[in-house]
Amino acid sequence: MHPLPKVPKSEIESRIQRLQNAMRSENIDGALITQNIDLYYLTGTMQNGVLFLPADGEPCLYVKRSLVRAKFEASVPVEEMGRFKELSEKLREQFANGKRLGIEMDVLPYGLALRYLRCFPDVEPVDLSYLLRLQRAIKSPYELEQLEESAKMVKQVIDLLPEMIRPGVSEVELAAKIEYQLRMMGNFGLYRMRAYNQELVLGMVASGVAAATPTYFDGPAGGLGLSIANPQGASRKIFAYGEPILVDISAVCEGYIIDQTRLAVIGELDDDLKHAYEVTRQILKEIEQLGKPGIPWRDLYNRGCEMAKAAGLEKHFMGYGPDQVRFLGHGVGLELDELPVLANGFSEPLEEGMVIAIEPKFTFPERGVVGIENTYVVKPDGLKSITFASEEIIYLDS
Amino acid sequence: MHPLPKVPKSEIESRIQRLQNAMRSENIDGALITQNIDLYYLTGTMQNGVLFLPADGEPCLYVKRSLVRAKFEASVPVEEMGRFKELSEKLREQFANGKRLGIEMDVLPYGLALRYLRCFPDVEPVDLSYLLRLQRAIKSPYELEQLEESAKMVKQVIDLLPEMIRPGVSEVELAAKIEYQLRMMGNFGLYRMRAYNQELVLGMVASGVAAATPTYFDGPAGGLGLSIANPQGASRKIFAYGEPILVDISAVCEGYIIDQTRLAVIGELDDDLKHAYEVTRQILKEIEQLGKPGIPWRDLYNRGCEMAKAAGLEKHFMGYGPDQVRFLGHGVGLELDELPVLANGFSEPLEEGMVIAIEPKFTFPERGVVGIENTYVVKPDGLKSITFASEEIIYLDS
Repeated sequence: MHPLPKVPKSEIESRIQRLQNAMRSENIDGALITQNIDLYYLTGTMQNGVLFLPADGEPCLYVKRSLVRAKFEASVPVEEMGRFKELSEKLREQFANGKRLGIEMDVLPYGLALRYLRCFPDVEPVDLSYLLRLQRAIKSPYELEQLEESAKMVKQVIDLLPEMIRPGVSEVELAAKIEYQLRMMGNFGLYRMRAYNQELVLGMVASGVAAATPTYFDGPAGGLGLSIANPQGASRKIFAYGEPILVDISAVCEGYIIDQTRLAVIGELDDDLKHAYEVTRQILKEIEQLGKPGIPWRDLYNRGCEMAKAAGLEKHFMGYGPDQVRFLGHGVGLELDELPVLANGFSEPLEEGMVIAIEPKFTFPERGVVGIENTYVVKPDGLKSITFASEEIIYLDS
Repeated sequence: MHPLPKVPKSEIESRIQRLQNAMRSENIDGALITQNIDLYYLTGTMQNGVLFLPADGEPCLYVKRSLVRAKFEASVPVEEMGRFKELSEKLREQFANGKRLGIEMDVLPYGLALRYLRCFPDVEPVDLSYLLRLQRAIKSPYELEQLEESAKMVKQVIDLLPEMIRPGVSEVELAAKIEYQLRMMGNFGLYRMRAYNQELVLGMVASGVAAATPTYFDGPAGGLGLSIANPQGASRKIFAYGEPILVDISAVCEGYIIDQTRLAVIGELDDDLKHAYEVTRQILKEIEQLGKPGIPWRDLYNRGCEMAKAAGLEKHFMGYGPDQVRFLGHGVGLELDELPVLANGFSEPLEEGMVIAIEPKFTFPERGVVGIENTYVVKPDGLKSITFASEEIIYLDS
């Protein structure tokens, strides 16, 4: 039907098996999966449908459109969805002896959830999302290969930054140039986020006062944005001498997203900002060593906070004042906001194969944001970066 | 705080008033608005928060982040959200005598909905989304101005297509060039869709066999896409002689999205495809005349189907065979999939000020998709296009 590479069947089989094991250990008898990313992860296709997965036995993907494409791509059994009444009868039959049904409570809309739950009288709905997200946090060798391909795309663009950043160029113009380069390499151009109301274009190209503008976006740098209706990231502001230019770039290969940030300056950067940038590099080095399997996620965040405080920069760490965000890093994969979250609330341990974007940043109101970000995979002896490129500030002639 | 233009206060006041009127007529006593687009529409800011709107009296926007930015941008009263327990108490107090509470059941995630509904014991949740979407379908003169600005961006890019389309160029490379031009003009680069699991990059650059590849996407042309994880729109396929190249472009100004499609060919197009394209133009002309205030939405779809059938092309209309979609057009505005929907299920009448993208298209398996799309505003005497550019096929030298 088409020449695009498929997800290996063994990947899908192992993912289904792992999720079924986790479901059994939580006494979840079956799951109804509806979100396109979760569907893709568990079936190998992203067509319009729902997956029913019993804790024991074979899953079935019921597809509305395109049935022919889903049958070609999926590594699980596929059936036509038919009318909702028919689907409802099939689901009820399949789950006849089930009690606890897992659904994706963090993404499935309320109205649709009610509709599906009416197919299963007398079941107890439970949230499956955290379980599934925790499983997805640990990447297979196949998944790591895709992330490494994404990292190569970002590396190529970072190498071009010295040619692209010039006095008189605006944030959105630099974003345009970066996006163009990535797209010519086959980048998807959308960065999927799971959290309600979160969205992202490219990442972030933000400089000076515009970068320090607070936003709703759940990240350490906000950005002025192009309008009040698009209130984050790149704006029409033109780069000026001596201000920090934060370039936060994502790229996508086979659905897998990488995340990396570098800092550029036209001319010279003030000494205190230069020092703050050095602190972010030190934090990164420290976390690279600490980040071994077994350490609680929160410990990495708290160590970052300690180091920011020791440097007298705690008020500037990960945003400024009331607009600080309370994390140091986030998992990346098919979504940009995956687990683990390096934040205070999480006592869960790091595990080998988790992939994390770590982004220590400092915000200085009216002056800008300095910081760095790499994406790492957790190895037995610490974090190994899968993003490359020099970590020095990129200095450009004025 | 920042120099970005604000939404006029009179706009926000009139939107709130219209929604309150509609709520009263449906016996809805209050509404809790959570989705970023709805929040922006009703308050003038898109920060992280929830809006409580009583059927009578003043609304209040409770903001988590950024409070300072929300206060600066919003045209409604803004308060700090605080901890969830405090918010819950405030909401309960505000809705002490309320019975029916409107929520956005089509977008609000199930888990979050349960959490909010626990703030309101003994209320009856009702779906507010359709009411709000119906109101949003009718654009004010301010909103039309923004859409006209978006249309200007698309027009400039369509004028450049003859330079950008060349033999040997791939779909994704053309998409890269189009996106670059739009972004240099200040385009946002994200096309918001409301429907669960729907997403779009740019629109669609799709040619020949790749364009005819069926997808899950709720539109008449699918597209092969870049990978199974991004299974729609532009692919790496290279343009060939004599095949239809469908270029479907969106652009965003102040959040408002325009949608337009043109057809290009390198060399000559087969006569039957050329004829099919002429039929899409005839359908468009017919709908332009029919589209007066008062006509049911479904009548426009059915008229399109009749004309496709009369031309012997009904199997190819809006997709092929089982992968056909059952609509002819869709509202556009802050989201790409707004009301009205020109489809069989809808007996609602067109109203003056509605803005609709109408996109008759025919799919020929293995050969491609031909079609056209303009965005219109409903006027007393019919539809008036707010997108420009010649409607002739763009012929390019081979």
